[in-house]
Amino acid sequence: MNEIKKILPEDAVSNSDDELASHADTYWNSHHPTSEQRAKYVVYPSTTEDVSKIMVLCREHKVPVVPMNGASSLEGHFIQTRQGLVIDLSRMNKIKQLNRDDLDVVVQAGVAWEDLQEFLEPHNLMFGPDPGPGAQIGGMVATSCSGTNAFRYGTMKENVVNLTVVLADGTVIKTKQRARKSSAGYNLTGLFIGSEGTLGVITEATLKLHVKPLKQTIAVVPFNSIYDATSAVKDILEHGIQLDAMELMDGKMMECVNASGETEKVWTEKPTLFFKIGGASDTIVKELVKSVKEITGKHESLKFEFAKSDDEKTELWSARKVALWSSINYGRKVLDEPAAQLWTTDYAVPISKLPSVISETVKDIEDTGLRCTTVAHAGDANVHHFIVYTPEQREVAKQVVERMVKRALAAEGTCTGEHGIGYGKRDYLLWEVGQDTVDLMRKIKMGMDYYRILNPDKIFQVDPREKTEDH
Amino acid sequence: MNEIKKILPEDAVSNSDDELASHADTYWNSHHPTSEQRAKYVVYPSTTEDVSKIMVLCREHKVPVVPMNGASSLEGHFIQTRQGLVIDLSRMNKIKQLNRDDLDVVVQAGVAWEDLQEFLEPHNLMFGPDPGPGAQIGGMVATSCSGTNAFRYGTMKENVVNLTVVLADGTVIKTKQRARKSSAGYNLTGLFIGSEGTLGVITEATLKLHVKPLKQTIAVVPFNSIYDATSAVKDILEHGIQLDAMELMDGKMMECVNASGETEKVWTEKPTLFFKIGGASDTIVKELVKSVKEITGKHESLKFEFAKSDDEKTELWSARKVALWSSINYGRKVLDEPAAQLWTTDYAVPISKLPSVISETVKDIEDTGLRCTTVAHAGDANVHHFIVYTPEQREVAKQVVERMVKRALAAEGTCTGEHGIGYGKRDYLLWEVGQDTVDLMRKIKMGMDYYRILNPDKIFQVDPREKTEDH
Repeated sequence: MNEIKKILPEDAVSNSDDELASHADTYWNSHHPTSEQRAKYVVYPSTTEDVSKIMVLCREHKVPVVPMNGASSLEGHFIQTRQGLVIDLSRMNKIKQLNRDDLDVVVQAGVAWEDLQEFLEPHNLMFGPDPGPGAQIGGMVATSCSGTNAFRYGTMKENVVNLTVVLADGTVIKTKQRARKSSAGYNLTGLFIGSEGTLGVITEATLKLHVKPLKQTIAVVPFNSIYDATSAVKDILEHGIQLDAMELMDGKMMECVNASGETEKVWTEKPTLFFKIGGASDTIVKELVKSVKEITGKHESLKFEFAKSDDEKTELWSARKVALWSSINYGRKVLDEPAAQLWTTDYAVPISKLPSVISETVKDIEDTGLRCTTVAHAGDANVHHFIVYTPEQREVAKQVVERMVKRALAAEGTCTGEHGIGYGKRDYLLWEVGQDTVDLMRKIKMGMDYYRILNPDKIFQVDPREKTEDH
Repeated sequence: MNEIKKILPEDAVSNSDDELASHADTYWNSHHPTSEQRAKYVVYPSTTEDVSKIMVLCREHKVPVVPMNGASSLEGHFIQTRQGLVIDLSRMNKIKQLNRDDLDVVVQAGVAWEDLQEFLEPHNLMFGPDPGPGAQIGGMVATSCSGTNAFRYGTMKENVVNLTVVLADGTVIKTKQRARKSSAGYNLTGLFIGSEGTLGVITEATLKLHVKPLKQTIAVVPFNSIYDATSAVKDILEHGIQLDAMELMDGKMMECVNASGETEKVWTEKPTLFFKIGGASDTIVKELVKSVKEITGKHESLKFEFAKSDDEKTELWSARKVALWSSINYGRKVLDEPAAQLWTTDYAVPISKLPSVISETVKDIEDTGLRCTTVAHAGDANVHHFIVYTPEQREVAKQVVERMVKRALAAEGTCTGEHGIGYGKRDYLLWEVGQDTVDLMRKIKMGMDYYRILNPDKIFQVDPREKTEDH
């Protein structure tokens, strides 16, 4: 630490109790650390060079390092199993260069995606991925996150041009130049996306941008059953109709939104699809609205509302926007359980399996007596159940999640569509891809981080024989 | 070989001169082997298990292995620098399972993409990438290829759900299950895409499918200059107008097509944009055609033709279709040089640099006295110059290509947008990403193929001190 203190300004190194605590856990996390699982220091680099110098020292002294950005991850991604250093990249928050003509932007890892969207707004541009609030670019790359826009614009995997990364030994590499399309050598950009801080510290990224749809509207369509709603989604996909978003909220979720009072509108408490429908002209949007109305009608939609003004757009999307918050309120206030926790789950399946896996999982959760609300990025067949539980119900919740994952895997799906493996889903990754595939991941890790100092015990355990606990 | 002969049927192992020769080189290759650079045996496995057994033996005896599919690669990807075994996967040509509802298909590595398209046609489905004729899925994955459809549907990187791969030691892994979206562990699928046979032998893939645009037309628009044409492309991108393809052919290329007599139509011999314009209804397509006409008009297009029938569509696209063949004919017949060779080059740049890099490169080539025609996937800013040269002009052509790559790199571009590094572009990869980034690729290779038996000397040399020659 004395050597690191020579590199960084005084206010960029801390071991205060408050800062160690705030870097150890969040309310949102589905997996909480023990009291020992806490870093010894938090450092705040300002440049890639700072990070490189820090890594040279950490490598030399074999100090475990947990890189951290917005701390909005959910699977215990930054649990400090081997107490060392947290590298907090949030001071690296510069938008360095907008290349308007090339539809890309160069940013540091600590830029929050909402700030980036605000910066792009006057240029009529947008960045595709829209994960939870507060997420920063470095963490979004590391988690391979996405959000409601992924159906149209893809996940982080499809939205990064190149990365600047500090490797375990302090070497700084850039994965690619700035051409969007390239087949020059191994796809290192793609390897770091989703590597969860275990292969390198991401310090800078060039991101692809999209021109905002010139015209866009929102449509909201309730159905009698999840089966009808998801069948409509399948049908729209089979017609090759390109929409900007296709989201599902179940009846319980709609009840919750009504109960929260956070929107002006009162919603039908039935499984509901939310569409973003965009295009280059009003005529195109009108044509798409017509198709969506026709197809959802065939699947016995209960009504079809679409926005005719900007205010109506905001109003119709508002229910989707408050989904997460209203689920928490529901647990804490409506159920009168101030200690209620929220387990935000995540899985994805091939689209044909969506109706059965969602329905069976909701039934299973309700059968245990736990409450849950459900939101799905339906166009991507990626589902979240928000499970409300009290501390005493932790074990029941855990078992429900395990069965949910097994159900998704049996349907040829994945244990995580966009939240990542972190600490909480390591066993599920093994179930999903098998020992040989995880072993290959280990070999890649060993080749790149021989002393395993980079975010140890995430994705897989450093030492598979070690027992770990879940909190 | 005695052990391998026990595994495979008699007709699946060969060391005949003919077969060794046909697996050593093609006319198309820009880099040809020496007479020693030839395998000792060619083997034809039928299953993943066959490949696994072969690799176990090759690992044990440290035999270099070159996996091969359609042999349509261009950068000496299968030059046998260390004479060993060619694994020819073309007998693994089964389409195993179409999941119509999930828009994916499971295929073996030896399936040719044109056969796959034919199979999908009656289902109204298509596979996105459309590389050179004869390419097979395994090689397409390994090269990270694309083609004219990449502007709309992405490259191989965006079109593979999962891969079955035989590793250097014979271990068989599957990279993922069948959910389209996943952030479960390292993106191994993405790592094998573009790994050029150096990290594993791809034996099976699940591919994403697309619903064919319900309505589509072709528009052909000539301009006075490359500058005008590429400015129109930039302008269309900046308007966020989603088209299915946006291709450029230069004036020389159009001359060539006319000279070839391979199309019925006579073309304006000027830089010309070819558009595929598709959508879910006639109204949408009409609206898009209107926008394209307006924008190209602003950039002083010379005329605007679009197809009103299927026959007209075929006719208007025919020039793009015969581009490569007519360039070869031009060299061999029109120039009366039967020994003429074609150097098919490849680079990509950020779109804003497209006008200057294309124009300067064409001028440079013409200044040397060589002939060239130019075709670009303009929407992706990915350019090919077809350089015609006689054996005596090889060195001049090589220097022109080097200057072309340096120009693309100076524009923050890449030395290859879709053909890969292979044997021919290893130096350029170093120029492009630097020694540290290539060293990281080496580390990954070492972690996965310790004896470096998998397609050695591709992407980078096994032994960087070794001198290699270009042919």
